[in-house]
Amino acid sequence: MSVERLEKKATIDLRKKHVGPSCKIFFSHDPIKIVQAKGQYMYDETGQRYLDCINNVAHVGHCHPDVVKAGAQQMELLNTNSRFLHDNLVLYAQRLQATLPDKLSVCYFVNSGSEANDLALRLARQYTGHRDIITLENAYHGHVSSLIDISPYKFHQLSGAELSPFVHVAPSPDVYRGKYRADHPDPAAAYASEVKDIIAKVHTKGRKIAAFIAESLQSCGGQVIPPVGYFQQVAEHIHKAGGVFIADEVQVGFGRVGTNFWAFQLQGADFVPDIVTMGKPIGNGHPMSCVVTTKEVAEAFMSSGMDYFNTFGGNPVSCAIGLAVLDVIVKEDLQGNALHVGRYLANLLEKQKEKHALIGDVRGCGLFVGVELVRDRLKLTPATAEAQEVIYKLKEELILLSADGPHRNVLKFKPPMCFTGEDADLVVEKIDLILTELEEALGLKLPNTVTIENDSKKRKLSTDENGDQYPNSLLHSREGSPRVPQQTKHLKT
Amino acid sequence: MSVERLEKKATIDLRKKHVGPSCKIFFSHDPIKIVQAKGQYMYDETGQRYLDCINNVAHVGHCHPDVVKAGAQQMELLNTNSRFLHDNLVLYAQRLQATLPDKLSVCYFVNSGSEANDLALRLARQYTGHRDIITLENAYHGHVSSLIDISPYKFHQLSGAELSPFVHVAPSPDVYRGKYRADHPDPAAAYASEVKDIIAKVHTKGRKIAAFIAESLQSCGGQVIPPVGYFQQVAEHIHKAGGVFIADEVQVGFGRVGTNFWAFQLQGADFVPDIVTMGKPIGNGHPMSCVVTTKEVAEAFMSSGMDYFNTFGGNPVSCAIGLAVLDVIVKEDLQGNALHVGRYLANLLEKQKEKHALIGDVRGCGLFVGVELVRDRLKLTPATAEAQEVIYKLKEELILLSADGPHRNVLKFKPPMCFTGEDADLVVEKIDLILTELEEALGLKLPNTVTIENDSKKRKLSTDENGDQYPNSLLHSREGSPRVPQQTKHLKT
Repeated sequence: MSVERLEKKATIDLRKKHVGPSCKIFFSHDPIKIVQAKGQYMYDETGQRYLDCINNVAHVGHCHPDVVKAGAQQMELLNTNSRFLHDNLVLYAQRLQATLPDKLSVCYFVNSGSEANDLALRLARQYTGHRDIITLENAYHGHVSSLIDISPYKFHQLSGAELSPFVHVAPSPDVYRGKYRADHPDPAAAYASEVKDIIAKVHTKGRKIAAFIAESLQSCGGQVIPPVGYFQQVAEHIHKAGGVFIADEVQVGFGRVGTNFWAFQLQGADFVPDIVTMGKPIGNGHPMSCVVTTKEVAEAFMSSGMDYFNTFGGNPVSCAIGLAVLDVIVKEDLQGNALHVGRYLANLLEKQKEKHALIGDVRGCGLFVGVELVRDRLKLTPATAEAQEVIYKLKEELILLSADGPHRNVLKFKPPMCFTGEDADLVVEKIDLILTELEEALGLKLPNTVTIENDSKKRKLSTDENGDQYPNSLLHSREGSPRVPQQTKHLKT
Repeated sequence: MSVERLEKKATIDLRKKHVGPSCKIFFSHDPIKIVQAKGQYMYDETGQRYLDCINNVAHVGHCHPDVVKAGAQQMELLNTNSRFLHDNLVLYAQRLQATLPDKLSVCYFVNSGSEANDLALRLARQYTGHRDIITLENAYHGHVSSLIDISPYKFHQLSGAELSPFVHVAPSPDVYRGKYRADHPDPAAAYASEVKDIIAKVHTKGRKIAAFIAESLQSCGGQVIPPVGYFQQVAEHIHKAGGVFIADEVQVGFGRVGTNFWAFQLQGADFVPDIVTMGKPIGNGHPMSCVVTTKEVAEAFMSSGMDYFNTFGGNPVSCAIGLAVLDVIVKEDLQGNALHVGRYLANLLEKQKEKHALIGDVRGCGLFVGVELVRDRLKLTPATAEAQEVIYKLKEELILLSADGPHRNVLKFKPPMCFTGEDADLVVEKIDLILTELEEALGLKLPNTVTIENDSKKRKLSTDENGDQYPNSLLHSREGSPRVPQQTKHLKT
């Protein structure tokens, strides 16, 4: 197969004709045609090389030869469904299990993060006999009907969206912009208490909670790092209500956070979810995914009497690819790389924050980093247009980055795990130049912010856009409770 | 990767430990370990060769070298999401579209039949602004929450299953065992009229129909071939109610029916669904799938304001594989093979019906054939245990076949499309021997049935298990209305 078969214009025209217009493309006014990729680099039809800072699906690097080889060899040999015994399936289940706490021992193999989260809801409902779900503000859990319902990130796009009666939305545990911030004495408890209040309200309506579901770190929601202890306390409330805790690792699992293999483990060894869902990076681009749960939940699901069959799920090719991805993560110490390069990248970005008024917050773990742009560090006015400008200018510099979050003002770093220090240098250098230009054009300066940071006592309370008074997070960014990771401490790198 | 890495017992033990117990295996008392496959043959760990009569997913033959090569080459080059332009995506969309009526011009690429059917429901609901769905008795449309609701085949497995208030179940258009049979003057109109009645009832409740969904030929439901004209008349009723017609081709598309590329086309050129969903055979085992609809439906979906993004859907590897599958179907004339070998197989089975009392009906199109086993040709008492016995005995003869339908008494043929006349000879020869033995053991004979068939005037009306009098379908099997395909004419081969 040749690398390019059509002129770019012909590709665009055919796409307009035959591909659903809801399927959006990056840089729609001047989209990129990518024809090849390797490691952390993508190549367009003219041979131009882009640095890829966004594709967390190409986890161990685009087109990793070990993964390609494992897939190709197994495709030649056998690809069939899981109604026949096959070693790849059971060896892969065993290997995945070994990365998780012991009680998470039973796997269901499916084809996508959406299928995984939908199955998680089915497991939770069957196990608990309850129906209602608590989800987080700005959460995204997938594109099938049952998940749009629990994904405020999606259903808020609908004109006239109505919340399903069985879905309850808790505040996002965002200590930068959320309801309880870094200056709060115990944001973890405060956010968990919001979940407790929801449970109480649900009970007064005679309804019952099947599950609390959360991405271990919110990605589309704005690269949000929940305060340590939040999941434990939520789990306590949820378990008391007879529900289960679902940790959605679709975006952030498989070593990306550097210190741990799974992002829920950032909360501490005392936290174990009842169900974990996986996705994107699991097959380095191959359509596959997995749900892992406890024996108790799995047995309750079976006792319903309904079989579970997934035509493609757990086929020998997918499992061979899954095994190869796990092998490469170990062989190339990609979790270690995420830790070190992530720390390096975060430090570079922290320095940019000291220099650029537009950078309100830098947060992240390993190679999952968010840079929140604001027009005003006190009011936290989202710098949405500026974030878009950064993305577009970076594209001109052959760097792929994206902006997300409810205000689309958070620059999202989630590159392939082979991302290097030099790559970090390059992207931060370009961001520095773009922000400098932008700030000059806007007449934005960093007047006293640095001073303020160093001398918080001089500062006054500011007024947010809703007119409420609140202490700016910067004011207290060195004063949080010991369990509260401060903004800079979010950088678990 | 070596072909076998564990002893069979170790594989079984690990599976019990780490794979969801709801995921059932074939022949659970003595499951088969398959390590390799080629064409229509599968090989176990001892090298024994099984003839595969059931894997419609391995559509162009297990591990077809052209498909493997296309997948492997593209995996080496690039595998990323559809937010970048890529020729494979648009060329594949164009090629798929060319197999369909012109008005079905817009594609959405997803990862499984379940994702496809769920998206079809979302499209239908957004386009119509309605919510309710009419589905068929014994239908199976997938495993995600929204589809369990519309799959009686699944939700009847649940103890205490409750029908969702927005789901309405119409009788399966089964002219052998259903409400209106081959002797009815116009079963197509009669079954369609049932749908019309449901619509009227739904309207009296103040509800509105978003869609009618049906497999073009019911597979799990018992290899049911709807009478010609049924879909047209249903579509008329549904359109009048403001709903759309969804044809689910997940099991039966891509030339399997022999005379046509799509099974809905068996209804005639005057029938065009509003949405078509694809799945299983589309990638010869690779996890991929597609929804195709009209420009109007696609534009209405976009106007909701919600983007549609599917991480793996339409990636360059999946599309390369999809293109290769289409190429092989043409190059090897597999649709033609389905037509000819299907006809040959059906004729062999028809002869068995003349010989074996247990065979109540033989029906099918191309390489999609059902043999319904009954204990009594007049009462149609399902021969469920006997069907299981046939399946188990065939396994001993190294032939893989399955039994399905609401009574699990329909032998289901849906082999890879490279199935040959010799393969058909072999399986039918073995079935002949097994049925002979079974009938001897049961003391079952074919007393006058053949005579009856040849001299229907001698026959009396019989009494079915509910005590109702009805004319046995055999009685009138040569007397249906011209639009009603008779049982033997169902063999559109």
